[in-house]
Amino acid sequence: MAKETKEGLTVTKSGDSSEWYQQVVQKAGLADYSPVKGCMIIRPHGYAMWEGIQSFFDGIMKGHGVQNAYFPLFIPESFFKKEATHAEGFSPEVAWIENKDKDMKDRLAIRPTSETIMYDSYARWIRSWRDLPFQMNQWANVVRWETKATKPFLRTREFLWQEGHCVYATAKECAKETKYWSDMYKKVSEELLAIPVLQGKKTESEKFSGADYTVTIEAIMPDGKALQMGTSHNLGQGFAKAFGISYLDEQGKKQVPYQNSWGISTRMIGAIILAHGDDKGLVLPPRIAPITCAIVPIFFDKKKKVVMKGAEALYKKLLNTQRVVLDDREQQSAGWRFSEWELKGVPLRIEIGPKDVEKKQVVLVRRDTGKKEFVKVAQVEKRCVALLEEMQKNLLSKAKKNLKDRLVKVTTKQTFTKAIKDSNVAIISCCATSSCEDAIKEATGATSRCIIKEARGKCVYCGKKAAHEVYYSKSY
Amino acid sequence: MAKETKEGLTVTKSGDSSEWYQQVVQKAGLADYSPVKGCMIIRPHGYAMWEGIQSFFDGIMKGHGVQNAYFPLFIPESFFKKEATHAEGFSPEVAWIENKDKDMKDRLAIRPTSETIMYDSYARWIRSWRDLPFQMNQWANVVRWETKATKPFLRTREFLWQEGHCVYATAKECAKETKYWSDMYKKVSEELLAIPVLQGKKTESEKFSGADYTVTIEAIMPDGKALQMGTSHNLGQGFAKAFGISYLDEQGKKQVPYQNSWGISTRMIGAIILAHGDDKGLVLPPRIAPITCAIVPIFFDKKKKVVMKGAEALYKKLLNTQRVVLDDREQQSAGWRFSEWELKGVPLRIEIGPKDVEKKQVVLVRRDTGKKEFVKVAQVEKRCVALLEEMQKNLLSKAKKNLKDRLVKVTTKQTFTKAIKDSNVAIISCCATSSCEDAIKEATGATSRCIIKEARGKCVYCGKKAAHEVYYSKSY
Repeated sequence: MAKETKEGLTVTKSGDSSEWYQQVVQKAGLADYSPVKGCMIIRPHGYAMWEGIQSFFDGIMKGHGVQNAYFPLFIPESFFKKEATHAEGFSPEVAWIENKDKDMKDRLAIRPTSETIMYDSYARWIRSWRDLPFQMNQWANVVRWETKATKPFLRTREFLWQEGHCVYATAKECAKETKYWSDMYKKVSEELLAIPVLQGKKTESEKFSGADYTVTIEAIMPDGKALQMGTSHNLGQGFAKAFGISYLDEQGKKQVPYQNSWGISTRMIGAIILAHGDDKGLVLPPRIAPITCAIVPIFFDKKKKVVMKGAEALYKKLLNTQRVVLDDREQQSAGWRFSEWELKGVPLRIEIGPKDVEKKQVVLVRRDTGKKEFVKVAQVEKRCVALLEEMQKNLLSKAKKNLKDRLVKVTTKQTFTKAIKDSNVAIISCCATSSCEDAIKEATGATSRCIIKEARGKCVYCGKKAAHEVYYSKSY
Repeated sequence: MAKETKEGLTVTKSGDSSEWYQQVVQKAGLADYSPVKGCMIIRPHGYAMWEGIQSFFDGIMKGHGVQNAYFPLFIPESFFKKEATHAEGFSPEVAWIENKDKDMKDRLAIRPTSETIMYDSYARWIRSWRDLPFQMNQWANVVRWETKATKPFLRTREFLWQEGHCVYATAKECAKETKYWSDMYKKVSEELLAIPVLQGKKTESEKFSGADYTVTIEAIMPDGKALQMGTSHNLGQGFAKAFGISYLDEQGKKQVPYQNSWGISTRMIGAIILAHGDDKGLVLPPRIAPITCAIVPIFFDKKKKVVMKGAEALYKKLLNTQRVVLDDREQQSAGWRFSEWELKGVPLRIEIGPKDVEKKQVVLVRRDTGKKEFVKVAQVEKRCVALLEEMQKNLLSKAKKNLKDRLVKVTTKQTFTKAIKDSNVAIISCCATSSCEDAIKEATGATSRCIIKEARGKCVYCGKKAAHEVYYSKSY
């Protein structure tokens, strides 16, 4: 065991949430700082969660007919510039490689997202209405040269993600599917990660560069800040026109198709940490936990053998239904080992000591509530399944309560400012113009998270004509 | 269906193998050329094979206690230079990014391999003998700026791979494990891809830059050229010393550990194409085939409904045990559809026409032999399983025969030169010095593939003292 995990957290989550986050990330072995500024090293406990998200969502994609592919890391500068808004939006963040070829005409960017390089191929591949819908995805690393302070998982210069890029015959199907993928992200967030979300369109100033509109899911962390969890962009025909994508319809007439793109990233791991963690460290929803049960035998010199025998038998039994570890490190006290599995967020701790062996029982301890219970060895398997289901539900409903409690509908500038100051999510009617949004950000630190619905009347902030009812909050 | 797949191959494999390869890659939908010179686009049919390799080998790694992680794409120049031989070996191929930060001290390379960035962290993470063996892997993209002509899968500037990096307490364990990972690569190649391999150490001039030695597996393609399939490097203590990795042993004494690194890449897909393909296109071993069975209903106007009903019932039935598609494209003739699935290498074609429906039978056609057989509908599931197993075995034994037939032991310079000219693999006693290997390459185009055993006597090529018995051949 590396030395740093021995120390435990030195701050509380509510006391110094930023320091708490950094400590949890490092001490629970989720990620480490890298010698490359703004980049992180994803360590096994963190990477295993990414594998969990990948496996869950890859199944959803394949079930919907999406095929995986892989496009080059490099994008020629000329491609980038084909869609003007897109190029403008991304250019400050793009990293370029030094020219290595004498005959290279174009500078090469490291992909910040792959619309342009993918759609260049789509123009060659898509010919007929029979090719539609054309549904493709890639799992990849992307690079965006952040100038803001970076934080592991939440904002890094390189991150891992999936980017889905689909092409449809009609605007209607494209809109429906854009919503569908946002709904699937909601499913990942709520069903796998136990994180409820707000869902809606982004305002004009917050949408993806080059999109007609962006649908987002936004989680509200316990501190009241929003965390964007996944976005789905309706690209309309803009990219198709810029890249010359067309198809022949059933009547043999040339048509321009409609496109969307959608992505989720390793950012979701940051959300898990923030949404559920407590003063002892991580608290992992069972479905995404790389380890669901940690068996900790409690040794007393004379009874060591008999305890280990019991622990090993239990371990073998649980292997069938659980992702289980047996922590038999004799050099560490039982208390130290308890703390370590708590820090790592393992949902269930199973204690077994000499008296337990005698009584053919174990002690099960829930990570979310700390509640202990004695369970007969014959019942352990079944009880673990039941407790883990309960924990998954409990974490989701706690997070739902937080979300609900944070929502405040306000109708005046004063109450709006107060709501943001109190770390709440303010629901206001607003004009949703970029000048008003900039003014709000400048004055309060809040940004629009997503649109709830159309609104009439006046903008709560500037008094001009309102366009939408919108969620506003501070954000990660 | 994209237009290019309609055309079929215009050359034979033996007639123009290079053009044949390019056509199969593109027309079977495995990969496409990209606008970025030397980079390829891996299309779904090719990417699905990579997923198959990943899933098979990831299971082997996890079963052996290896944990997945993810390290930054960028490597500071100063890291690179810490191990002198390593830096020297890779520097011509490294791509650098343009400086984006004012305070950046180091140039940043795009990883060609990750020893240096990983071992910098290992020095922080590894403290005690209890941390060993430390076994870590990452699945990632790497970039090597090839100046030779590139070919999809076989040689590209960016490729996908896994790189395992492990640390051990003793030299003995490190050597044993270095061989173990090469054995596991052999398992992937032979059991999954049906490609037999030669296995042995590389000569000094062909080993990995910075390694004590490299163990390789080499497949021999039907044209007699070798294809390096996977390498496992015993790094000894060189990197550990350069990066300051040490641990305290059980007596509390500071020790320098031993390391290895090992990798396989998307190159393996190139090997599948070359090893098994024929004049009709790809021939895929069933275990790696993204689709194992293609059902092709044969329509005649009056009987369309009844045929489709039979085909659909069969499709539903086979879904349980096979990766099956139902090709009901009415606009394409049955013959056209037959050719397409042959081109894509699908192991079994299942034809079903009006008469077959009447007789409650189907026609099964093997891709490897072209052999047809009538099978009763009630027997199809079982028969598919048996035929696919047979095909997997048949492809492996055909490839084994090719390998065996190509091996020629020679004892004179003349017979050596002839063996290489005849596209065989020559087994010779040789000095294995870099000057002699360079001379051989210059004169014959052959390179040493791997060492078979120690040898006495004289070098067949230069007449100086022999050191090893070695395989020589041309290679990809």
